[in-house]
Amino acid sequence: MKFCSDCGGQGTMAIPEGDTRVRFICDECGRIHYRNPRIIAGCIARWESKILLCKRSIEPRKGYWTIPGGFLEEGELVEVGAARETLEEACATVEVKSLHSMYSIPHISQVYLIFLADLVDGKYNAGHETEEVKLVSIDEIPWDDIAFSAVKFSLTKYVERLKSGATSTYCGGYEKDDSDPSRF
Amino acid sequence: MKFCSDCGGQGTMAIPEGDTRVRFICDECGRIHYRNPRIIAGCIARWESKILLCKRSIEPRKGYWTIPGGFLEEGELVEVGAARETLEEACATVEVKSLHSMYSIPHISQVYLIFLADLVDGKYNAGHETEEVKLVSIDEIPWDDIAFSAVKFSLTKYVERLKSGATSTYCGGYEKDDSDPSRF
Repeated sequence: MKFCSDCGGQGTMAIPEGDTRVRFICDECGRIHYRNPRIIAGCIARWESKILLCKRSIEPRKGYWTIPGGFLEEGELVEVGAARETLEEACATVEVKSLHSMYSIPHISQVYLIFLADLVDGKYNAGHETEEVKLVSIDEIPWDDIAFSAVKFSLTKYVERLKSGATSTYCGGYEKDDSDPSRF
Repeated sequence: MKFCSDCGGQGTMAIPEGDTRVRFICDECGRIHYRNPRIIAGCIARWESKILLCKRSIEPRKGYWTIPGGFLEEGELVEVGAARETLEEACATVEVKSLHSMYSIPHISQVYLIFLADLVDGKYNAGHETEEVKLVSIDEIPWDDIAFSAVKFSLTKYVERLKSGATSTYCGGYEKDDSDPSRF
């Protein structure tokens, strides 16, 4: 942030009075600008004991596999965002059931909220940002070719859930490791 | 948003190519600016069968009761943000245990993530934004004086959890009603 989005004025990075963190404070209108983490909403979309995976057609991690998901939009319920992303990326209509996992990635300020969902009619297709979509059993998950740490966490915990019968939401977080290509 | 935060230029609200939503697009540098919901992280902080409530000393909803919570900061794990807010608002150190509830408020683009947590030493005090802090049993919850819909949802589901022994995360969302003072 280099300019105030309210008045176009220049600003200073400083800790506002009563605050503990550095913020962008406009030199002209005085507005304090806050930045906050963003939510990525997605689904583990199930159909007849298999789940939907999407091969990414764009960077980052083009050619790697992920579950449908993307940035939550303003004005959206989290569950609605997860279902929308599944429709956009995998052309699949889902009924969202429960919150499967929450996973923070502090160094890029993202929080993944992944739901268990069921395909409504078993239909799917490659949507935008997607090269290929397929249904896989848990034995067919391509663990070495998963795009993102949060997706690997969600899938690992999904396998664990199937085995344990757990009903709670799994929580996790990523510790930065620049050598890991799935660090996003 | 009236000016580009990158270059200070003026912009246009329009749907970018390949997108489906109106965004602020800078007329000068071309940057597309996205806006996304913010996360409020908080705790139901427990001590000897009671939970911690805070009476708000600031607007909105000054004088009403809430649980400790606030906006997640960049670079923070959600659980860490929830514990930080509990320390700031109630001067209480907690150990976060599990994700209790997720609650979307689409019309103000907020998502509450509320955790079950335990006070470490039973100590608490009024922090900033707080007039009074107290431990209450579930029979003593002041239902008519709860500050926010998301907090009412969390507390209602907490009572339900105690009675049912449920281990899953409760999910909910608020439908806009301008006449409801706890709509935030």
